[in-house]
Amino acid sequence: MRLRNKPWAKDKIEEYPQYAVPNPELNKGKWDEVFGNNNPLHIEVGTGKGRFITEMAKAHPDINYMGIELYDSVIVAALDRLIEAELPNVKLLNVNAAELEKYFAKNDVDRVYLNFSDPWPKTRHEKRRLTYKDFLKSYENILVDGGEIHFKTDNQGLFEYSLMSFSEYGLLLKFLSLDLHKSDFEGNIMTEYEQKFSEKGNRIYRCEVKYTNDSKGQS
Amino acid sequence: MRLRNKPWAKDKIEEYPQYAVPNPELNKGKWDEVFGNNNPLHIEVGTGKGRFITEMAKAHPDINYMGIELYDSVIVAALDRLIEAELPNVKLLNVNAAELEKYFAKNDVDRVYLNFSDPWPKTRHEKRRLTYKDFLKSYENILVDGGEIHFKTDNQGLFEYSLMSFSEYGLLLKFLSLDLHKSDFEGNIMTEYEQKFSEKGNRIYRCEVKYTNDSKGQS
Repeated sequence: MRLRNKPWAKDKIEEYPQYAVPNPELNKGKWDEVFGNNNPLHIEVGTGKGRFITEMAKAHPDINYMGIELYDSVIVAALDRLIEAELPNVKLLNVNAAELEKYFAKNDVDRVYLNFSDPWPKTRHEKRRLTYKDFLKSYENILVDGGEIHFKTDNQGLFEYSLMSFSEYGLLLKFLSLDLHKSDFEGNIMTEYEQKFSEKGNRIYRCEVKYTNDSKGQS
Repeated sequence: MRLRNKPWAKDKIEEYPQYAVPNPELNKGKWDEVFGNNNPLHIEVGTGKGRFITEMAKAHPDINYMGIELYDSVIVAALDRLIEAELPNVKLLNVNAAELEKYFAKNDVDRVYLNFSDPWPKTRHEKRRLTYKDFLKSYENILVDGGEIHFKTDNQGLFEYSLMSFSEYGLLLKFLSLDLHKSDFEGNIMTEYEQKFSEKGNRIYRCEVKYTNDSKGQS
């Protein structure tokens, strides 16, 4: 994603604490209080401009959504969407995905979405991929037992890597599509990037994996 | 594959016992005697006209190969290849893949190849797919511990199904290519079908999976 420097972004984020949660570490283990209900919490790691999370929140009012994005110059676009949509069940976290365990306790999260994550194609950057084993461990540490990761990407190399990483970690592959937009999968909500990319006729890969008793962190 | 009736096929197969093993159930547990050495044994289930297995045998003289094919009208084409190639390390079995355990004992086989298996796309035919759990169980029962399945296909639906079936069974995904002919995988030997199909510019999917202590049959 192209990053433009937006010196005013930080200020704007602080103006909307009802959407962009300030001091999120204070809510660890009690996100239901922030949302005012006990509905399941689904987080998107790397939420970008927020189209996916906002449209999901509209389509599923009984689920709470949280979009996590490191770059304040990007998350302000997601913030604009939330301000306009006025939805009670979606919030943003302007934090680093490598520090999820600072903000979420075990069982806080029911599902993790990864959409079009940075592929980091160089082998020496493997640890930065959001499907690297250390990230899988951190998701496990904040998810409920049997929690799921739903992952889609157009990047063939990242998808191949991720399926192997999931298998190595002991995750169960529940759903797989090697050409999402030609499959019979229903309810797909496209990210900004997905729409642009798929208009060129290229493939989207998607899978759902589940933590089980065979997963590495639990055995 | 198109099947032509060849009433003379049975007779021809019987004429070449050095290539098409007669009464294979008698060799269960002692295939090293048939090959005259203790080299690893790799079998191809559904060997068709035998191009893959013959070329693999040429390329890897220190491995024994066995091509398994139900249809005598097809396996005669593989037999013709073997007669011409005069290789000591490849043989054919004209038997049903559903009965592998009749012919092989545990530890007889080091690797199973599945190439362009019949996709059986209808859900009610799932049990006929060579990556259905009952087949995975039968491969486990004839493979060494840590044995592998190497699988390639052009059929997207069969590949998706198979990756899920492998995961459900607890197999470890060691290698994955979602576009084999554009990957840096070396040593690929094409089947007849693969050559024809890939000339149209279509994708070949390939993976390698490994039985581990987490596999269902051993836990």
